[in-house]
Amino acid sequence: MSLVAEILAIGTELLLGDIVNTNARFLSRRLAELGIEVYNHTVVGDNPKRIKEALDIAFKRADLVITTGGLGPTKDDLSKETISEFFNRDLVLDNRLYNELKDYLDKRNRSMSEGMKKQAYVPKDSLVLYNKTGTAPGIIIEEESRKIIILPGPPVEMEPMFLDQIEAYLEKYKEKTILSKTLNISGIGESMASDMVSNFLDSKNPTVAPYAKEGKTELRISAASSNEKNAKELIDDMENKLREILKDHVYGVNEETLEECVYKLLKENNKTISIAESCTGGLLSANLINVSGISSCLMESIVAYSNESKMNNNLVDQKTLEEYGAVSKETAIEMAKNIAIKNNTNIGISTTGIAGPEGGTKQKPVGLVYVGLYIDGQTYVKELNLFGGRRRIRTVGVALALDFLRRNLIKNKSLNLNS
Amino acid sequence: MSLVAEILAIGTELLLGDIVNTNARFLSRRLAELGIEVYNHTVVGDNPKRIKEALDIAFKRADLVITTGGLGPTKDDLSKETISEFFNRDLVLDNRLYNELKDYLDKRNRSMSEGMKKQAYVPKDSLVLYNKTGTAPGIIIEEESRKIIILPGPPVEMEPMFLDQIEAYLEKYKEKTILSKTLNISGIGESMASDMVSNFLDSKNPTVAPYAKEGKTELRISAASSNEKNAKELIDDMENKLREILKDHVYGVNEETLEECVYKLLKENNKTISIAESCTGGLLSANLINVSGISSCLMESIVAYSNESKMNNNLVDQKTLEEYGAVSKETAIEMAKNIAIKNNTNIGISTTGIAGPEGGTKQKPVGLVYVGLYIDGQTYVKELNLFGGRRRIRTVGVALALDFLRRNLIKNKSLNLNS
Repeated sequence: MSLVAEILAIGTELLLGDIVNTNARFLSRRLAELGIEVYNHTVVGDNPKRIKEALDIAFKRADLVITTGGLGPTKDDLSKETISEFFNRDLVLDNRLYNELKDYLDKRNRSMSEGMKKQAYVPKDSLVLYNKTGTAPGIIIEEESRKIIILPGPPVEMEPMFLDQIEAYLEKYKEKTILSKTLNISGIGESMASDMVSNFLDSKNPTVAPYAKEGKTELRISAASSNEKNAKELIDDMENKLREILKDHVYGVNEETLEECVYKLLKENNKTISIAESCTGGLLSANLINVSGISSCLMESIVAYSNESKMNNNLVDQKTLEEYGAVSKETAIEMAKNIAIKNNTNIGISTTGIAGPEGGTKQKPVGLVYVGLYIDGQTYVKELNLFGGRRRIRTVGVALALDFLRRNLIKNKSLNLNS
Repeated sequence: MSLVAEILAIGTELLLGDIVNTNARFLSRRLAELGIEVYNHTVVGDNPKRIKEALDIAFKRADLVITTGGLGPTKDDLSKETISEFFNRDLVLDNRLYNELKDYLDKRNRSMSEGMKKQAYVPKDSLVLYNKTGTAPGIIIEEESRKIIILPGPPVEMEPMFLDQIEAYLEKYKEKTILSKTLNISGIGESMASDMVSNFLDSKNPTVAPYAKEGKTELRISAASSNEKNAKELIDDMENKLREILKDHVYGVNEETLEECVYKLLKENNKTISIAESCTGGLLSANLINVSGISSCLMESIVAYSNESKMNNNLVDQKTLEEYGAVSKETAIEMAKNIAIKNNTNIGISTTGIAGPEGGTKQKPVGLVYVGLYIDGQTYVKELNLFGGRRRIRTVGVALALDFLRRNLIKNKSLNLNS
C-alpha cells in the first residue's frame, strides 16, 4: 500500500521567523528514503481553530499527517489537545508515562507541576511513543483512511523518536525502495568536487547531487528500484565510479564524520595525539572529543590563547614569537612539536591564526590560519586563507586542520607499508 | 488596511529534504516587523495542478500570497507560468528585461537560450521587480482582494529584492507596529521559568511565550500597537514585571549570549580567567572564545582528558584521583584552583564528568558532571545530573558551567560592593 504524507509543523515561533523549520527537512529526507511521497509541508501557529483547518486540508490531500511541535508543558502547547478533539478522542492518563515523569522529577528534587502532568495524558486508543531525550511523548492515531503521527518539536527529541520508532512502523507502507548513500569529501570545495564528477551529475538513476557544507562537501547518490538488492547495486556501482575519480578526497560515507575518520586512522596506526590551539580556541579538541573512545589516543589539549600561555607551557620560544609573530608558520610548527614532546605523544597538532573581526593587517589579514603538524619527528605546516565571519573561520579552520591531519596519516601509513 | 499573508514556497527539492526553507523564516521576520500577520507557510512541489490547489487554499485564508522559487531557466521551473494561468493572464515579453538579459549574456559570450528567454516574459499588467543579483525577475499581481508577490528562490536574489523593492510596496498596508524582545534565561528550565511567570502567559498584548533551548530558555515578549512608542512602552512594562520575578535568572536580551554576558562581567570586575576541562573537551573554551575581545581576560585553557594530563599539569593530586576518582567534587575543585594558580588568574573554572555513552556506573551515571570554580581564593562546586546523548550532555554542561560562573561573578560583585 502506498502512502502520501504531509508534514504539519505547529508553532507560532515558526510564523514569526524565530526558528527555521529544519524538522520538515529531516522528515522529508527520511520519508523519501522510505519511498513515501510528500506533496506538501504546512506550518500553522499554536491556534486550535487554525490547527483544525490545517488538519482538514491535509487529510484531503494526504493519508498520513506528521505533526511536529506544540507538545511541551506550557499553556500555549496545544497540539495534543487540539488533535485529540479533531479525532473526537478523550485524553487519558498513561500510567507508564506518569511514573517515568515522576521518577525523572524525583531524581531532580522537583515536584510535579500541572504543566508537567499534562504531558502524561494521551488520546484514548492511541500508540504512545516514548521519548528518550525529553519528557513529551509522541503519539500515533490510526483511523481507516487517516493516520497521524504527533512528534515533539525539538530536533534532539524528534529525530531519535523517528529513527527508533517511526521508521519501523512505516516499513509496511513501503512500496518501492529508495536508497541513498552520501560520500563525504573534505579538503576540496563543492565546485571543484562538482567539476571532477560533472559527467555523473546528469545521471537519472541513480542520481548524484553535491551539497556544500562548512569545510566539507557531500555527494549524495540516490537510487530507486522495486527491490532493495538492485537499488544497492546501482549505488555501489556509482560509488565505485566516483571514488575512482575522487580518491582520498573521500573521507567517509553517510553519517561518518571527519573526526571519526581521524580517530580510526589514529587507532589503526596506533598513534597518540595532543593538541595546541590558538585561534580555534578549543573547537578542534571539542570536535575530536565528539568521538566516543578518543580518550585512548588523545592525551591533552592546550588552548594557548595568550603569548604568555604559549611561552609558559614551553610551546613557543619568545624568540620565535618576536621574530615571526604568533600567527606564523614557525609558531605553528613549534607549537605542534612542543605539545607532542610535552605529552610524549606521536602526534602534535596546532592552530594559530586571525579569526577576526579585529586583529587583521595587510600582511596578515583576518582569515589567515596556520595548521602545524608533528608526526614522529617530522613536521608539516599548512596555510589557510579563509573568508567569512569569526564563527565560520574557526569552524572551517577546524575542518581543514582535521583534513590535513587525515591526509598526512594516510600518507604516513602508505610510506610505512612501503618501507 | 490590514493584511494577512501566506508564504508559499515552490520547489520539489524542499519536499525531498534537499534544502531547508530558510526563505520562509526570512520573510516571516520581515513581515512581523511590518505588522503583517502570517498564519501559514506552505511548501508545494514544481507541479502545476498542486500549485494551483495550494493557491486556492492560500487565498481562502490570506489576502496576500508571497511565493518563492520556481523562476529559473529550466523546464521544471513553472511558478510564473502556473500563477499566470491561475490569474488568467497571458505572458508577454518585457523589453527591458529582454535587453538586460541579452547584455548580461553578451558580456559572457553566451547566446540566448530558450530557457533564458523565458525569463523575460511576465504576466500581462503586472509589476516587474528587477533582480540585481540574478536573472529571474520578481513579479507582483494585484486583483481586488487578491495580491501575489512572486519571488526567486535563491536567498541571495530573494532577500535584496524584498528589502529594496517589496518593503516599500508593503508600507501602505502597515497598520500597526509589532515589536518583540526576548529575555534570555539560564540555570532554570523552561517549565520552571513558565511556572514562575505563569500569571503573564495568558496576557494578550503584549504576549509572553517561553521557548526551550539546550541549556537555556527564552521568554519572548511581543506587543502590537498603532504607534511604535506605545508598543515599546508595553514591552518595557512587561519586561520590568518579568525581571522582578526572574531576577538573576535573566542573563541578557535578544541576541545576547551567555558567553557575552560572562565576558562583560569579567571585564566589569577586572578579572582574568583560565580553564581546565575534562568531559566538555574544549567546548567551554570554544564557547567563551566566540566572544571577540576575550583574549584580554582568558589566559589559557587545558583539556586534561587523561589522568596523566591532569597530574602532569599539576591540576590534580594523584591522591585525590585515587581517593575520589576523576569524576568527583574534589577533583573539580582542585582542577579549578590549580589552573588559576598556574596561570596567575583571578578565576579558574573546571569540568569533569561522564559524557557517555560508555563509562557510566551506578554511583556515577552517564550525565553526572561537576563544575569547579575558584574565584580569588574561594572555591565553589556544582553537581549536574544531565540526560540525553553525549553531544547534549556536553552542550548543556557547558551552558550550566557558564551560568554557574555568571551567578558567582554577580554574587561576588555585590559582596564587594557591600564590604
